Amino acid sequence: MAKATGERTRSNDKRERILQASVKVFARKGFYLSRVAEIAKTAGVADGTIYLYFKNKDHLLISIFEDRIDEMCDAVEAQVAGLTDPAEKLRRIIDMQLGLVAEHRDLAEVLTINLRQSTRFLKQFAAPKFNRYLDTIAAVVQEGQEKGLFRKEISPRVFACSLFGALDGLTLTWVIGRGDAGRLEKAAAAAATILIEGIRARGGAR
Amino acid sequence: MAKATGERTRSNDKRERILQASVKVFARKGFYLSRVAEIAKTAGVADGTIYLYFKNKDHLLISIFEDRIDEMCDAVEAQVAGLTDPAEKLRRIIDMQLGLVAEHRDLAEVLTINLRQSTRFLKQFAAPKFNRYLDTIAAVVQEGQEKGLFRKEISPRVFACSLFGALDGLTLTWVIGRGDAGRLEKAAAAAATILIEGIRARGGAR
Repeated sequence: MAKATGERTRSNDKRERILQASVKVFARKGFYLSRVAEIAKTAGVADGTIYLYFKNKDHLLISIFEDRIDEMCDAVEAQVAGLTDPAEKLRRIIDMQLGLVAEHRDLAEVLTINLRQSTRFLKQFAAPKFNRYLDTIAAVVQEGQEKGLFRKEISPRVFACSLFGALDGLTLTWVIGRGDAGRLEKAAAAAATILIEGIRARGGAR
Repeated sequence: MAKATGERTRSNDKRERILQASVKVFARKGFYLSRVAEIAKTAGVADGTIYLYFKNKDHLLISIFEDRIDEMCDAVEAQVAGLTDPAEKLRRIIDMQLGLVAEHRDLAEVLTINLRQSTRFLKQFAAPKFNRYLDTIAAVVQEGQEKGLFRKEISPRVFACSLFGALDGLTLTWVIGRGDAGRLEKAAAAAATILIEGIRARGGAR
């Protein structure tokens, strides 16, 4: 750790290192069989250090999800703001979601598999952040509907859930099947075509 | 239990009762926190009886999945065989998948949430049955492509994963959100439109 970094940055580094170690351990062993001691060892910190940042193992999983979804939403919102065509925006969102998982297979495994450990967990913690992501997608759909490019009878929320689910399904089969990143990229392009053509208004601009 | 039923049927009844009890308990407590003793109590059988039919808790979860997916595939294949239009076939598959979960919320919860307990589990046990379902969908897509109704550049397998994923995503948000069955039915109709219009060849028959 650089001497020049302040207390705040140093502590953030450690927190981030613990989160990254958790992703690795959860992906390898599954959430229930993972032990905090093993996460500490992987992160290169003392067991007790983890409890300075996180209450327990649940809190680690929640923090991975919340941090990564927030980063993803920030990045998606920034990229989408620079585009005008709603169809192009959807294509970019799809590329970004599948790009993130293709580059971080362990994270993909934690988000598609381990995160669904219990209904209580999903309802209580994951739902608010997850809704932020769905709202971002739904806003693009609504914009396309207002511009007359997307069919108005489709609920933007249902479209957002379908898009998220389709990508999650492709990620899941990719994670289970151990295909290479190129395969997921090709699937992303096909899924984008299906979903965008699926919502495009008949006679709308291409 | 009726006196007239033979040994075979009686034993199948008990097996089925245990499976139904497992679905209830897994949905309520989550897979890891569920105990075989509680499943036995819910099924109205002695703890030891469960081990006459199932090796362990893992085997119960696997059996729920395998039984229900097989039933679903049999029903889907029978229904689809009676239709000629591939788009109509896809719509029927979507209605059936979401119809099953709308009628059996506990089962929906187990299949969308508890089933993803670990990567090992999914790879080793769920993948073969899951592939049977994906193949059924992919065959309909291929038929539509051969008839010139569906766009040929979309991989049938990618479409099948996207369709399954979209429905799984809608089911997940429905299970978490506790909406009524009617809401899921409306979402099913919208998802069908998105996916079918998404694969329909431009200028193809409607």
